[in-house]
Amino acid sequence: MTEIVDWVAVDWGTSNLRAWGIGPNGAVVFEKTSPKGMGKLARADFPAALTELLDEVSSARSGPLEVLICGMAGARQGWLEAPYLEAPTDLRGLLDGAVRPEMPDARIAPAILPGVCQKAGADNVMRGEETQLLGLAALTAGFSGVVCMPGTHSKWAQLSGTRIEHFSTAMTGEMFEVLRTHSVLRHSFDGDLDGPARADGFAAGAAAGLEHPEQLLGTLFQVRAGSLLSGRQPDWCAGYLSGLLIGTEIGSNRHLIGQQAVPLIGSPALCALYAQVLGMIGASGEARDATEIVLAGLKAARSFVA
Amino acid sequence: MTEIVDWVAVDWGTSNLRAWGIGPNGAVVFEKTSPKGMGKLARADFPAALTELLDEVSSARSGPLEVLICGMAGARQGWLEAPYLEAPTDLRGLLDGAVRPEMPDARIAPAILPGVCQKAGADNVMRGEETQLLGLAALTAGFSGVVCMPGTHSKWAQLSGTRIEHFSTAMTGEMFEVLRTHSVLRHSFDGDLDGPARADGFAAGAAAGLEHPEQLLGTLFQVRAGSLLSGRQPDWCAGYLSGLLIGTEIGSNRHLIGQQAVPLIGSPALCALYAQVLGMIGASGEARDATEIVLAGLKAARSFVA
Repeated sequence: MTEIVDWVAVDWGTSNLRAWGIGPNGAVVFEKTSPKGMGKLARADFPAALTELLDEVSSARSGPLEVLICGMAGARQGWLEAPYLEAPTDLRGLLDGAVRPEMPDARIAPAILPGVCQKAGADNVMRGEETQLLGLAALTAGFSGVVCMPGTHSKWAQLSGTRIEHFSTAMTGEMFEVLRTHSVLRHSFDGDLDGPARADGFAAGAAAGLEHPEQLLGTLFQVRAGSLLSGRQPDWCAGYLSGLLIGTEIGSNRHLIGQQAVPLIGSPALCALYAQVLGMIGASGEARDATEIVLAGLKAARSFVA
Repeated sequence: MTEIVDWVAVDWGTSNLRAWGIGPNGAVVFEKTSPKGMGKLARADFPAALTELLDEVSSARSGPLEVLICGMAGARQGWLEAPYLEAPTDLRGLLDGAVRPEMPDARIAPAILPGVCQKAGADNVMRGEETQLLGLAALTAGFSGVVCMPGTHSKWAQLSGTRIEHFSTAMTGEMFEVLRTHSVLRHSFDGDLDGPARADGFAAGAAAGLEHPEQLLGTLFQVRAGSLLSGRQPDWCAGYLSGLLIGTEIGSNRHLIGQQAVPLIGSPALCALYAQVLGMIGASGEARDATEIVLAGLKAARSFVA
């Protein structure tokens, strides 16, 4: 593959590391994945992890190989901290904010994109999602509106073209996990969580969350009471908890959503659940391919150098 | 103490077991405590735990010693399940719903009071709090209004005299513990949690929770972002999380509270925090002595046999 790789796009998350070789015409010429996510590496381990992944590619070239990285590699506990841009900001400025860690091997020239923060009484941070948002803007000319990125820490961003106006983070996915694993509700999840009653539980929980997002602390306990009193089975309870949390999240963002078609960036299964709940309030969700989005974001970040 | 004990009142919770000997004139003639709470006992261990606590007292009497028990001993996973009364209901019926477990030693005659449940789409359960509510009614003639019982699972009950009309449970205390221990927020609590900034953090969190109880899933993440961006210290973060959860709980019950003086039954430290937040919305909290309340409840339950 000598000289057909122009540069390498990298998404370096907490759990994984993904790299795509980009040819001169912008096409992906290879894809490589490694389990060496930020969460598993000490600071000194990052150069070797990248070299290992790209050794063959960089050896075959005459000049240094440009590697553009987004995600948690730029966190304080990552490879080299890439200071946040502060929202509101134009995401075309991402590359200007990049940091360039030193490599023992000069054949690889990495740059890590910054995350975005928000202050002024609404403290918030993102790392990785800003590149996806830029990718969405690049792929969806003229888009303006709210974008939802469901996950452990769901992000909701208001985008105007390539400009991020405001964003928030909902601890929905993590809340599901800690409650399922560590709270009194765990007694209601002792069995098959993916049985046939899960869909009914999800719909009931979502309706409750949408109707009364302010009642979450109280409605949660009804999961336990429902299994004690009404014989609710583990699959129904798991669906209810999932629906209640997603319904609460979407219900609390209703003023931003209106009747919009909300782009969804995340795992296909999770995006389908969010689309279902968005449909319950007369809006809709449009699941986007997360890999395509992050690649478009890294390409766009690279093209917008000031 | 021969014959001066008329009967024994017992509060058998998850963590502890407390017993009070009641003399013929209603005065407490002894108090005994044991760490043998329901959570530490197998079903077969309950008779011995009670005998051990009351052996000396029962041996000194000629007839069987009546022991009236409230709390988790009557749960399904406890000694002997005492079926729930269903709200709305008059708490003077508690003794009618009591179950009488067999004892190997006939000198002790225990009766376990039922809990209260609620169905019809607002599934909920309580065990032990119903006896406290009856005690509150007995000590506060003519009381009608909302009562708050702060704790791991806070109860909010609407009481009309001895009648419980409706109640809810907020997982506030447990949420604090699971988030502090198991979520990403734990990184913000690495240090002294009881430092001087805790009070400021509490006030800020309570204000945020009261203003936007529907935003809990989002505001929670600001604890983490605040320590990353604004250098918030662990004491401030712990105060903020506590205030945010209590503010959210009280904010979600605002329609029930109005400008009332709300009786608070719980630990003095927790009741003081709830009273502070109730004051922020123009209501007030009146901390009651929880031991006095549960004793009054057991006495009242015993006096109202049909």
